[in-house]
Amino acid sequence: MGEVHRNLYGLTDLRFERAPEELESLSGLDCVFLALPHGQALDIAPRLPAGAKVVDLSGDFRLRDADEFREHYGREHTAAELQREFVYGLTEFNRDAIAKARLVSNPGCFATATLLGLGPLAAAGALKGRVVVDAKTGSSGSGAKPAANTHHPQRMNSFYAYKPFTHQHVPEIEQALRAVGAEGRWSSELVFMTHSLPVSRGIFASIYAELAEGAEMTGEELAAAYADFYRGSFFVRLVQGSPDINWVKSTNFCDIGFAARGRQVAVFAAIDNLVKGAAGQAVQNMNLMFGLEEKTGLLLFGGNP
Amino acid sequence: MGEVHRNLYGLTDLRFERAPEELESLSGLDCVFLALPHGQALDIAPRLPAGAKVVDLSGDFRLRDADEFREHYGREHTAAELQREFVYGLTEFNRDAIAKARLVSNPGCFATATLLGLGPLAAAGALKGRVVVDAKTGSSGSGAKPAANTHHPQRMNSFYAYKPFTHQHVPEIEQALRAVGAEGRWSSELVFMTHSLPVSRGIFASIYAELAEGAEMTGEELAAAYADFYRGSFFVRLVQGSPDINWVKSTNFCDIGFAARGRQVAVFAAIDNLVKGAAGQAVQNMNLMFGLEEKTGLLLFGGNP
Amino acid sequence: MGEVHRNLYGLTDLRFERAPEELESLSGLDCVFLALPHGQALDIAPRLPAGAKVVDLSGDFRLRDADEFREHYGREHTAAELQREFVYGLTEFNRDAIAKARLVSNPGCFATATLLGLGPLAAAGALKGRVVVDAKTGSSGSGAKPAANTHHPQRMNSFYAYKPFTHQHVPEIEQALRAVGAEGRWSSELVFMTHSLPVSRGIFASIYAELAEGAEMTGEELAAAYADFYRGSFFVRLVQGSPDINWVKSTNFCDIGFAARGRQVAVFAAIDNLVKGAAGQAVQNMNLMFGLEEKTGLLLFGGNP
Amino acid sequence: MGEVHRNLYGLTDLRFERAPEELESLSGLDCVFLALPHGQALDIAPRLPAGAKVVDLSGDFRLRDADEFREHYGREHTAAELQREFVYGLTEFNRDAIAKARLVSNPGCFATATLLGLGPLAAAGALKGRVVVDAKTGSSGSGAKPAANTHHPQRMNSFYAYKPFTHQHVPEIEQALRAVGAEGRWSSELVFMTHSLPVSRGIFASIYAELAEGAEMTGEELAAAYADFYRGSFFVRLVQGSPDINWVKSTNFCDIGFAARGRQVAVFAAIDNLVKGAAGQAVQNMNLMFGLEEKTGLLLFGGNP
Repeated sequence: MGEVHRNLYGLTDLRFERAPEELESLSGLDCVFLALPHGQALDIAPRLPAGAKVVDLSGDFRLRDADEFREHYGREHTAAELQREFVYGLTEFNRDAIAKARLVSNPGCFATATLLGLGPLAAAGALKGRVVVDAKTGSSGSGAKPAANTHHPQRMNSFYAYKPFTHQHVPEIEQALRAVGAEGRWSSELVFMTHSLPVSRGIFASIYAELAEGAEMTGEELAAAYADFYRGSFFVRLVQGSPDINWVKSTNFCDIGFAARGRQVAVFAAIDNLVKGAAGQAVQNMNLMFGLEEKTGLLLFGGNP
Repeated sequence: MGEVHRNLYGLTDLRFERAPEELESLSGLDCVFLALPHGQALDIAPRLPAGAKVVDLSGDFRLRDADEFREHYGREHTAAELQREFVYGLTEFNRDAIAKARLVSNPGCFATATLLGLGPLAAAGALKGRVVVDAKTGSSGSGAKPAANTHHPQRMNSFYAYKPFTHQHVPEIEQALRAVGAEGRWSSELVFMTHSLPVSRGIFASIYAELAEGAEMTGEELAAAYADFYRGSFFVRLVQGSPDINWVKSTNFCDIGFAARGRQVAVFAAIDNLVKGAAGQAVQNMNLMFGLEEKTGLLLFGGNP
Repeated sequence: MGEVHRNLYGLTDLRFERAPEELESLSGLDCVFLALPHGQALDIAPRLPAGAKVVDLSGDFRLRDADEFREHYGREHTAAELQREFVYGLTEFNRDAIAKARLVSNPGCFATATLLGLGPLAAAGALKGRVVVDAKTGSSGSGAKPAANTHHPQRMNSFYAYKPFTHQHVPEIEQALRAVGAEGRWSSELVFMTHSLPVSRGIFASIYAELAEGAEMTGEELAAAYADFYRGSFFVRLVQGSPDINWVKSTNFCDIGFAARGRQVAVFAAIDNLVKGAAGQAVQNMNLMFGLEEKTGLLLFGGNP
Repeated sequence: MGEVHRNLYGLTDLRFERAPEELESLSGLDCVFLALPHGQALDIAPRLPAGAKVVDLSGDFRLRDADEFREHYGREHTAAELQREFVYGLTEFNRDAIAKARLVSNPGCFATATLLGLGPLAAAGALKGRVVVDAKTGSSGSGAKPAANTHHPQRMNSFYAYKPFTHQHVPEIEQALRAVGAEGRWSSELVFMTHSLPVSRGIFASIYAELAEGAEMTGEELAAAYADFYRGSFFVRLVQGSPDINWVKSTNFCDIGFAARGRQVAVFAAIDNLVKGAAGQAVQNMNLMFGLEEKTGLLLFGGNP
């Protein structure tokens, strides 16, 4: 493992091993993390031993609607029955269900930042008009394989939009927004746009919403409402002014800040796409699934600078 | 000059000189560029010889409304009479007026990107509901003086929002949007937010607008409308998909791209904040003011990568 | 503290406090870390209660020779007596003395990388001719205060040399090289050059030495000799090929790699200047001073990427 | 072309075309630039019409010694006869020969920086002992094709050495050093090491040499000697203190600075690897070959920042 993750060089005897053809025969597995390209977990998850708990980090089991899955992932969902057992693993929204689940589908990185930032407003049902989410991600979100869009000579000076209106995280965001509050509370149109940042780690979502007439809130009132919603959620921090991806990098925190002018509100959410947006949240969910303290293994405090 | 702008070391005998106290007595000036902190041109511009043409790069003479000036710049406007003579130097919107002007007020960098991106839609009068502009700038926009927000150890990994709802470029953007089309065509609420990017050069504006019912356009139709609006504008390039600040850096170009879904449209505009957003556009305006070819001195093609 | 080190926001009640005028009256101090600009510890250290152990991170107590101190730090050494009690805190060279010390002077960041890379060769006494050390540091080495050389718009594209032949870490490096082996083993001329890298964290030292005739070693033999020298030193890792600052960032590790051609050898050492080059090594020394496990609090494994 | 070099989008009708199989039949060619992976020019150059002048940017025709070519490029040299006609295109060393040449072999990027920095000292014959060159390059030196070593998430925080003692530019550097002065003047051992910098553009060579006893020079004396050597060389600039890759980026300049202590001297040379280290120098050579002013098309002044 130290040859691939060279920061761990010399520190571990762990080795990557090829999984056996007969996954069903694997024994002694407490928890399986599936961290694979989209489409592979569809085939693998159904064959895992029934005693193993599973956290899948791909998009394979996030969507309840087979048509949406087909549209956004370009394939048929071949494990519909198993899908129904999966719980959506946005920890702060679904703690109880996750704690009881055998199968958890870990959210997408953009979905995590967007939902943590927008969820409390959606749950309150106070929105009017469309909601615009302008989201930006660091280059590590593209994976470990070199590609044109992560070629350093260009990426270091670049900023651009991609997958306009079509990012595959949109349906899981909308599905979760409908679920977070009372039925029918979320009825806004979502305009969601992804952009590429020239940093390694970090997602920043700028969320623009409009409150219903008479429901105006100041930045402070927004912060108070969010504090209420996230009471007991160690990994959500409400900050003065804007968060900064620099202060959450290499941590499992989601920092959230606010601004308001009349009925216009802006919410800013920042995470590390590889931690709260992926592996960290997966461990957080595992902790819940096994009755462990939610923070176990996740006391990562980043650094300054 | 080569000691300050070290890229020019050894290439020029030009020297910085202290201006005389008696600006009125300066002679032989064809054109004066004022590139000063906000507030200084207010004092200097009225004292310049009447024969000199002036391009002011600060915010001192951009706003026609004295109250708005006071609110956003925190001082009284002490040269109101002269202000009325100033033409707003967004070249592509005001070519004829600039060509006849003696005094030109060069637009702010954020204003340039936003207006070039949003202007054609505002002029068409086809918008409904609020318009959200999520704008991002490189660190050179903060000036040449080191400060906490441009301290390299932090800035290189940072992304954050700043001056939410209060950026001083908002009133000049709104003033120009009201002027670009027929009277009353622009009546949308503008939600404008600025963010800091960890690059040296570049502004990227993501513009989210909603078309009136029945006025839907595809991305291609948008591109065609913009091509019409910008016919003859060499420095506006309409690109496939998203522009990228990397491809306009060190140039005077504004690259614009489009996306649409139903009535929702997104327009992306990218410039180099120091060129089209400042010195380049100032030279472009000077060219018009002196009857020169607009491109003179501005054939800067950037680089790959 | 969370307002200054914003990665810690909301996570600690610790507050910065102004130290009392009467330092002598402070009670209950087990260990004092002095992390101050050069010159201040000279005044403070002598006034600390005798019961407190001290780790000073400045250059004030690193040099035994008062003339060298005056030359490189531009001031008289006003605490010569106390200086003699200080042990030089390059942990891997001085474990026993550090364990018994009350006062430890933490090495400079460049000195740490250079000495860990060059020490075993110096101790072996097998060198001939001058040794060239080409050292490079990230921008966080310049401190938390913004300055021209850490201004992001320039620094992000910069690489340059500074303080040629005069860096204040040179005398502590030479002092330690004379001490590491048997008397007289180190007699080479040291050519030491510092450069600035456009990253936040990391020091990389490229060390070029020439072996005496007949004493040629391959890269593998070098690695074996170093493995012997650093047996039991958890924080020194010997790597295949070149180390990379990316794999030691945010950790207390020093990664060392080798290359050889005939009598010419190159040793590459990489550390995080803020951890092994400063705060991490300070904690490592404190652990030894208090009889704790050397790794306590230092199991920082960095990240990929 | 604007689709590949997107900075040129919309600005040119030039198109990439596939060369015909029968290169011999091409007509109307004044000058051919071969910018191909190593090995391809070996096959192509001999087949070009005899009337065309050629500048080859690969390593295929740089080395006069067939054994060295085989060793460093891993193939037989199949065009030995043509090789003898090629002139080594380090403009500042070989102006007269280049002006008369039909075939020019453009130097490697590392070789250009190293030779411009070290050449005057080698020509003077005043060196003693080995010369150490610690060279660093930006990521664009790796080419336009994404690869593991240019993957942005890692490269942006990386610094490491590569190809220790074996870089293919070593033999062309030694060949040119032997040629630059009177026969036998260069007899030093060259220790040459390449490193990777986390910037897009730039090469910085730190050159450490030792003067013969009695031949000590100050930094100022070095500068004077270099000024003499480079009189009339517009693209070599001698700077105070250290050069910085930031001030030569996107230009054809080589900036050189100096430091000295007794017999130890350090020379620092900075270029843009893609301009003076490749395409710019190729054009500079073409200008000479066609009797044009050397600067034609190369008045690129970079930018601040």
